Amino acid sequence: MVNAVHTRRAAKSLRLNAVFAALADQTRRAIIETLSRGEARVTEVAEPFAMSLNAVSKHIKVLEEIGLVRRRVVGRDHYLTVAAQPLHEVEEWITRTRKYWNTRLDAMEALLREQEAMDGDADAK
Amino acid sequence: MVNAVHTRRAAKSLRLNAVFAALADQTRRAIIETLSRGEARVTEVAEPFAMSLNAVSKHIKVLEEIGLVRRRVVGRDHYLTVAAQPLHEVEEWITRTRKYWNTRLDAMEALLREQEAMDGDADAK
Repeated sequence: MVNAVHTRRAAKSLRLNAVFAALADQTRRAIIETLSRGEARVTEVAEPFAMSLNAVSKHIKVLEEIGLVRRRVVGRDHYLTVAAQPLHEVEEWITRTRKYWNTRLDAMEALLREQEAMDGDADAK
Repeated sequence: MVNAVHTRRAAKSLRLNAVFAALADQTRRAIIETLSRGEARVTEVAEPFAMSLNAVSKHIKVLEEIGLVRRRVVGRDHYLTVAAQPLHEVEEWITRTRKYWNTRLDAMEALLREQEAMDGDADAK
């Protein structure tokens, strides 16, 4: 049971490695941005980039392999969509990490308010 | 002016590449998670990992180089803190991208409601 949880966590951690690595490239992030506006053809996705269709296709394949992008084939047309789940996992990690900062910031603010109140008392005397 | 904006954007994009790449490693993410709970000594940060202090130090250096972690030296003690700004930039990118999905989801829901209303009308006749 503990092992199953451990294995699931390890798998999630490796998947998160792959998603972060895939997003460490401005072309791949731009592809995700384009697709987040809606489904698009491979040729439409490739259009704004100053690189060959083949080069863009390679980036798309990386995104497909880690499940960030899905492909739907209709005859000769290839349509791409973005898959929210892997991005959601990245966001979840950031949110979880940030929760601690907020707690720390709240504690610091409380301390500052206390200090100010004490300073105010001292002034009043 | 346009060039200055362009250069700034390109620099931000390259920084984001480096931040995503740095986070594509579970040890480095775990270091950030530890430090997000508060300032800690290098030795404290290294403790939970089944690797040498030297190996952990290398990961810490990567995080320092891209500004995710700051170091404060007091005599022989090295204290580390996490810097929020680069993580905030990652979050910003995700939020910006997700805004579009939400808009699309809203539009889809509106269409579904319309369809349901039309189906309801047809049933009533």
